[in-house]
Amino acid sequence: MEGMRRSDVASILKLAEQPDVLSFAGGLPAPESFLIEDFAELEAAVLRDHGRAALGYGPSAGIAALRQTLSARMAGFGRPTEPDEILVTTGGIAALDLIAKAYLDPGDLVLVGAPSYLAALHVLRSYEADLVGVDLDEQGIDPHALGATLRRLAEQGRRPKFLYLVPTFQNPTGLTLPAERRRQVLELAREYDLRVVEDSAYEDLRFEGEVPPRLCALDPGNVIHINTLSKIVAPSLRLGWLCAPRAIVDALVLCKQGQDQCSTTAGQWLAHRFLSEGFAERQIAAALPIYRERRDVCLGALAKAMPEGAHWTRPEGGFYTWITLPDSFEGLDTEALLPRAVDEQGVAYVAGNAFYAARDGHLGPRQLRLSYSFLDVAQVELGVRRLAELFRVTLDEARNGGS
Amino acid sequence: MEGMRRSDVASILKLAEQPDVLSFAGGLPAPESFLIEDFAELEAAVLRDHGRAALGYGPSAGIAALRQTLSARMAGFGRPTEPDEILVTTGGIAALDLIAKAYLDPGDLVLVGAPSYLAALHVLRSYEADLVGVDLDEQGIDPHALGATLRRLAEQGRRPKFLYLVPTFQNPTGLTLPAERRRQVLELAREYDLRVVEDSAYEDLRFEGEVPPRLCALDPGNVIHINTLSKIVAPSLRLGWLCAPRAIVDALVLCKQGQDQCSTTAGQWLAHRFLSEGFAERQIAAALPIYRERRDVCLGALAKAMPEGAHWTRPEGGFYTWITLPDSFEGLDTEALLPRAVDEQGVAYVAGNAFYAARDGHLGPRQLRLSYSFLDVAQVELGVRRLAELFRVTLDEARNGGS
Repeated sequence: MEGMRRSDVASILKLAEQPDVLSFAGGLPAPESFLIEDFAELEAAVLRDHGRAALGYGPSAGIAALRQTLSARMAGFGRPTEPDEILVTTGGIAALDLIAKAYLDPGDLVLVGAPSYLAALHVLRSYEADLVGVDLDEQGIDPHALGATLRRLAEQGRRPKFLYLVPTFQNPTGLTLPAERRRQVLELAREYDLRVVEDSAYEDLRFEGEVPPRLCALDPGNVIHINTLSKIVAPSLRLGWLCAPRAIVDALVLCKQGQDQCSTTAGQWLAHRFLSEGFAERQIAAALPIYRERRDVCLGALAKAMPEGAHWTRPEGGFYTWITLPDSFEGLDTEALLPRAVDEQGVAYVAGNAFYAARDGHLGPRQLRLSYSFLDVAQVELGVRRLAELFRVTLDEARNGGS
Repeated sequence: MEGMRRSDVASILKLAEQPDVLSFAGGLPAPESFLIEDFAELEAAVLRDHGRAALGYGPSAGIAALRQTLSARMAGFGRPTEPDEILVTTGGIAALDLIAKAYLDPGDLVLVGAPSYLAALHVLRSYEADLVGVDLDEQGIDPHALGATLRRLAEQGRRPKFLYLVPTFQNPTGLTLPAERRRQVLELAREYDLRVVEDSAYEDLRFEGEVPPRLCALDPGNVIHINTLSKIVAPSLRLGWLCAPRAIVDALVLCKQGQDQCSTTAGQWLAHRFLSEGFAERQIAAALPIYRERRDVCLGALAKAMPEGAHWTRPEGGFYTWITLPDSFEGLDTEALLPRAVDEQGVAYVAGNAFYAARDGHLGPRQLRLSYSFLDVAQVELGVRRLAELFRVTLDEARNGGS
C-alpha cells in the first residue's frame, strides 16, 4: 500500500455526491447523452436471444462477437486488427492495471505526462512504479523534454518500462498532441526501445478540429492501445478494451484471469450490438453538441470572470479544461483551497497537484482541472462564477496579508 | 509474469466451449437455475426507477443500498456488520486480487490448502507470492499440518501474510471443515498473528448436512470474508464482495480504484433488489435440488464405473467431487491424460496438479476434479462412464507395458 496517496479519486466522487455542490471534479459523461431506452431494449434482447448463457461466465479475453466488432473499430482507427489482438477489459483502468501487473516490478520506471491522468498514476503507484514526469507545453507532451529525459535515464543506465500517455483531449489538460509530435514521440520510443501505452478514452468525443493519426496506427508493433466503452455506451457497463500485438494480448489474458476472470457476458453482447447496430454512433452524435455547448459556456464564463493573468486550455473535444492561475497566486494552493470552494461557494474541482507524479517542482499548486461534461450550461456558468469569486477573494486576502 | 503458469483456467474454458465434449472442467453454475425472467424484469425496473444515473459511475466501495443489503446478509451469517465493513467487488477473484495487491510484496509467504482453488493460486502467483501448501485430509485442512507449518516457518523467522482457504464445499475437493477444526485453525492464526482469508463462494449451496459457523463469525477481527454473487444471482453480473474490519476495507477501496474504479452501478441496483426482494433465496431453493440430483448421479456413476481402489469425496453442497485414483495408477498422470480424455472420450476434467502450489510431493498426478454442477444428469452419467472407461483402458495399457 505504500506509495499510494490517500486517493483524490475517492474525494472527487464524494464531492460530486453532495447535492448542493456544483462539481467540476469528476470526469463524468453527460447522463443526458445515454440512449437509455435503446440500452433497456438491448438488455432485454440479449437475454431473449442468448438465453441463460448470457448470464454465465465468458472467455477471459472477451466474447468472440465483441472482439470481432472491436477489431473492426480499430481498423477504422487506421490500425488493421485481428480479433485475437483485442482483449476485452472491465473498463480502461482495468486495462492499465493488467499492463502494470504484467510489466512492472517494484521500482521500475514509467514515464508519464506532467500533468497526467490521476487514476493512471494511482494504478502505477499501486505497483510501486518509479514515475518520471515529462513536461507538457501548450501542445501536449514535449518531444524535446521526452528526449532529454530518455537521454538522462540512459546515461544512468535506467530504462523505463513504458510511456503512458493520453494523446487526444488529454486528461487533465484537454490538449491534443499534433501529428508531427506523435511521430517524434514514436521515433524516440523506437530509438530508446520504449514501449508506448496510448489511452484513447476521449478520442471519439471530438466536436471540432482535425483528427491526428492515432499512435497505434503509426506504430502498431510498439503501441498498446487502451480504450473504454464508458464514454460511448455507458460507465455502468464496466467495459473497455486494449489492442496490442497478439503475444502481448496472450500474456495479458493470463493477468486478467488473476484480476477478474472475465468481463460481463451479457454486457459484452449488449456492447457488441450497441456498436455494430449504430447505437454508439447515434449516441456520440447526440453527445457532441452537448459537450461543445458546455465547453463554450465554460470558456466564455472563464473569460468573463477569472482574475487577470489566469489562463486555460481550449479543448477540441473531451471533458476537460485546465486552468493555471496567475503568478500572483504564488503561495496559495488550489488543493488547500478546495474545502473553502466546497463549503463557501458550493463548487468543486480537482486541484492541480493530483495530476503530477512528483510532489513538487511544478505549477500544480496554482492549477486545477475543470470537467465541464457533467453539469448543464446554467450550472457550468454559475459554477465558474462562484469559482472565480473564490479566487478573487483569496487573491485579495493574500494581498492584504490575509486580513 | 514470471511465476504464472500457462493458465489451466484458460484451457478449462476452451475445453468447455467444444460442443461435443462433456465438460466436468469449469466450476459453472447450472444455467437452468438462473431466474432469467425475473432478472430481465429487474434490469428494466432498475433503469426505470433510477434513470440514467444507473448507467453512470458509482462509488468505488459500492452503492449504499447494496452495501446495506450485504451487511444484513453478513449478519445473517452470524457476523454483525456495518455497511462500511463491506466492499463491493467485481466478483470473488477480484476481491482476492485486491487483498493480494494490498498485502503482498514479491516473495511474501501465503499459506494455501494442498490442494486449493486454482484461480486463487493464479492470483497469488501473479504477485510473486511464495505459496506454501498445507495438507488437507478427508475433513479439509488439517490443523496439525497447519500448526507444524507455522512452527517450522517461525523457526526460520518467516511469517506468512495470510492463510487463504475455502472452508465450505472446498474447491477442488468439495470438503467442508468441521466446526471444531475451524476453531483450531483460528486459534493457531491468533497464536501466530496470521490473517485468515475465508472464501465462501459455495456456502449458500448446501443441500444436506449441518451448517458449521463461518470463520468470519468466529473471529470477525482477524478474518477477511470473500463472497460472490456469481452463484446466487449470475456470473455475468461480475459482482462479489468482501467483509472485513473498516480499516481494511478503507485500504482495499484504494486498491480497487487502481483495479477497476467501481463495479457496475446498474448491476449493483439489480443485485440489491435480487437479494432484498427474495429472488436470491428463490433461486437458491430452485438450484439445490438440481445440484443434489447431479451430485447423486455423479457419485452413483462413479461407484458403478470407476476402477477398484479409486476413491472420491462426497460433498454436502457446492459443485465438486475430487477423485483419487488407485496406487496402480502410479506413473500415469491425469494431466498428461487430459488430451486423450477430450479427443478419444469427449470428456473433460481438471487434472489434480493444477490445484497444488508445489510442483511435486503430492498426489496430484493421480487426482482430478469433477464439477457436476453444469451438465444435466444424463450427461453426468455418460461423462463419468466415458471417464471410467478411459482410466480402465489406461491402467490396462500400463499393466501390459503400453502395448
